[in-house]
Amino acid sequence: MNLLLLEDADFVAADRAILRDRRLHHLQEVHRAQAGDTLRVGRLDGAMGQGELLRLDAGEAELRLTLDRPPPAKLPLTLLLALPRPKMLRRVLQTVAAMGVPRLVLLNSYRVEKSFWQTPFLEPAAIREQLVLGLEQARDTRLPEVLIEPRFKPFVEDRLPALAAGSLGLLGHPGEHPPCPRAVEGPVTLAIGPEGGWIPYEVEKLAAAGLAPVQLGERILRVETAVTALLARLF
Amino acid sequence: MNLLLLEDADFVAADRAILRDRRLHHLQEVHRAQAGDTLRVGRLDGAMGQGELLRLDAGEAELRLTLDRPPPAKLPLTLLLALPRPKMLRRVLQTVAAMGVPRLVLLNSYRVEKSFWQTPFLEPAAIREQLVLGLEQARDTRLPEVLIEPRFKPFVEDRLPALAAGSLGLLGHPGEHPPCPRAVEGPVTLAIGPEGGWIPYEVEKLAAAGLAPVQLGERILRVETAVTALLARLF
Repeated sequence: MNLLLLEDADFVAADRAILRDRRLHHLQEVHRAQAGDTLRVGRLDGAMGQGELLRLDAGEAELRLTLDRPPPAKLPLTLLLALPRPKMLRRVLQTVAAMGVPRLVLLNSYRVEKSFWQTPFLEPAAIREQLVLGLEQARDTRLPEVLIEPRFKPFVEDRLPALAAGSLGLLGHPGEHPPCPRAVEGPVTLAIGPEGGWIPYEVEKLAAAGLAPVQLGERILRVETAVTALLARLF
Repeated sequence: MNLLLLEDADFVAADRAILRDRRLHHLQEVHRAQAGDTLRVGRLDGAMGQGELLRLDAGEAELRLTLDRPPPAKLPLTLLLALPRPKMLRRVLQTVAAMGVPRLVLLNSYRVEKSFWQTPFLEPAAIREQLVLGLEQARDTRLPEVLIEPRFKPFVEDRLPALAAGSLGLLGHPGEHPPCPRAVEGPVTLAIGPEGGWIPYEVEKLAAAGLAPVQLGERILRVETAVTALLARLF
């Protein structure tokens, strides 16, 4: 936790917050914080700054806040991801939030097992929990928007063209494609497939919606690693 | 498992191998392989190619092999990593192998907890197990070399200058440094710090050994994510 993220409910005044949950335990057990310490803090979807720990006891911590800096810029990106398996989904959500992705679409694919759509990790509170962990890691305050699209064809045919309009559309896909471009300017729409990759029909449909296949070399990377590698190359 | 990796002990003839362990169960339960199937195979530290599954029963699988292709190229890189916490270490080892790092140095740092050096995940067999998982993921056969250096100063003063000689020396470190370069040519020596970063003394020592600080932006990334992001940017 490199940033203590405060929610609206934590505020008891414009410059005061009280913590009682996981973050309190983290302050005590990991940071070994003490009254008088100054911590990096941010308000969820708001500004960042410093928090002075006025008091800290077994039940709660009280902070005096100076929130005077904007959070870091987000990437100009819409990321489409074939829904990963539940365990990977949690890590990917953290990575996506940490890397500064502002909008994530979790999309169906032929190679996404149907059972993945039943995971409790897709519930809004579970998604939000992982995103918050990623923001705390990276020192950001703004939650990415997450869209859940369990039907590939209607999303790609009816909604994707408008979402991708005006952006550089790319499809990460192993094979004989141009290499992923580096240091692009302007907005990007990037789709990353499931383990085993998109099937040819899906590649065709995504290409028809404006996403051109690019590759990262012969090595097959896990989804989480591929997301990080593609974003680090692109931006 | 995108590549079935065979060890010398699996071979019963130059073009035949018999499997009995984890890989047999994986073939049966994940791949649902059947006699007659053709699989991607590689020989550890050797060539890659195809394996025809001659038979598969509860106790063993027999393969006829055609190993006629070299594994993918490695990155021209020596990666120095402050020893991560044990759980992260396992994932980092997989990532390092999957990304094609040929040489990894696990190094001490002031911010590495002493207990991390006691983990059983540092035993050679445990390290090898994670590296093999990374190779299987990425379709590579060559194990990275892993050096364990629990003493920072003697390694950085006495051994690092020779290891880094003739390479571009870089030190991933948050702060006011030049951005990490892109698409470099030639060999690189890259050092990535612990959670919380290298301390100033360590930055000085690493700089004196020829490693120049570079940064990846304001966001603080987990070690595994930072490794992937820096390598994707550099190569």
